[in-house]
Amino acid sequence: MSLPLGGISTRSIAGDRTSSHVFTGVNRQFVDHDMHLRVCIARGKLTISEEEVEAMFVESILTVKGSDVITVASDATIGDLIATLARHNIGAVVVVDHGKVEGIVSERDIVRHLAGSAEGFRAKPVATLMTRAPKTCTKSDTVDQAMGIMSQGRFRHLPVVENGQLIGIISIGDVVKRKIEEAEQEAGALRDYIAS
Amino acid sequence: MSLPLGGISTRSIAGDRTSSHVFTGVNRQFVDHDMHLRVCIARGKLTISEEEVEAMFVESILTVKGSDVITVASDATIGDLIATLARHNIGAVVVVDHGKVEGIVSERDIVRHLAGSAEGFRAKPVATLMTRAPKTCTKSDTVDQAMGIMSQGRFRHLPVVENGQLIGIISIGDVVKRKIEEAEQEAGALRDYIAS
Repeated sequence: MSLPLGGISTRSIAGDRTSSHVFTGVNRQFVDHDMHLRVCIARGKLTISEEEVEAMFVESILTVKGSDVITVASDATIGDLIATLARHNIGAVVVVDHGKVEGIVSERDIVRHLAGSAEGFRAKPVATLMTRAPKTCTKSDTVDQAMGIMSQGRFRHLPVVENGQLIGIISIGDVVKRKIEEAEQEAGALRDYIAS
Repeated sequence: MSLPLGGISTRSIAGDRTSSHVFTGVNRQFVDHDMHLRVCIARGKLTISEEEVEAMFVESILTVKGSDVITVASDATIGDLIATLARHNIGAVVVVDHGKVEGIVSERDIVRHLAGSAEGFRAKPVATLMTRAPKTCTKSDTVDQAMGIMSQGRFRHLPVVENGQLIGIISIGDVVKRKIEEAEQEAGALRDYIAS
């Protein structure tokens, strides 16, 4: 959305000291999800309000994506793993033994393994490749927190765990998609506000 | 950053009609990069200003990351490709023949290929796997635009091209890292403002 920036200058209000400028030609809003705060500049009016803003938690990704998680056992073969990734068109699976998360294994792990001496790799167990004790998140973590964990660890999949049970998995692609949707929702809300 | 939300209610200013509330216990800023607009609430003061905000363009990622791009020729073998990905610890390479971008090939392409009849895959040419005519971006695209292209296409690497020449490659991880750094810079600027 490209809007003209006209007539804006510094505006400051401290207690009873008020200096006023009219905002013209600017329509914009800023939403802060942590603080449920909306700052809206539209039709020459500035409004700051506390709002019910849809929370940006990991749970909101699982709501759309579902909490079915593709898993493999640690003694499944790498051949099985490759077939599983293809069948579900995914990039990583969580390794679960007897209901407990033991690891995670990704396309990258397979390709790096192939760079070494990988004779007969298809018959080897997934345990050969997997990252043990992977980082996880909970559904009440914010999307930003999950994004930070993935960025810092340089990985792209994060299992979601609750009370020791696997309840989902989110990818960096899911996080980015959710952030883009959020930005679009905000732009839409502003258009509605201007039109009303 | 967790800050108490106190004393905020709806505030609206339209022309000469001003209703005033004091903001207490709230320190927050919103920065809009497209409009170079900063809204800052700190120490009971609301300030809106036009600011020199560092632009969030693809170029800002290349500045940090450099514009060296790992490439392979379309007649390189998949074995060479696997070794190249491992050596540079990357997830995709651009396929270039005679200085021209012909395709892109990623870890995913290799793993999907292995799910089919992949006998003797190491000796096959990269051209077997590559995505031809991949989407690209330019250094003057915004980081948000690049993020949108990757999200919509469900891929994680985007070559940067200028005048038909490959000048870099950005990954979804680069984009997310840049967005997090931006948020941290903004939080830091707010702390400085409060302390000053």
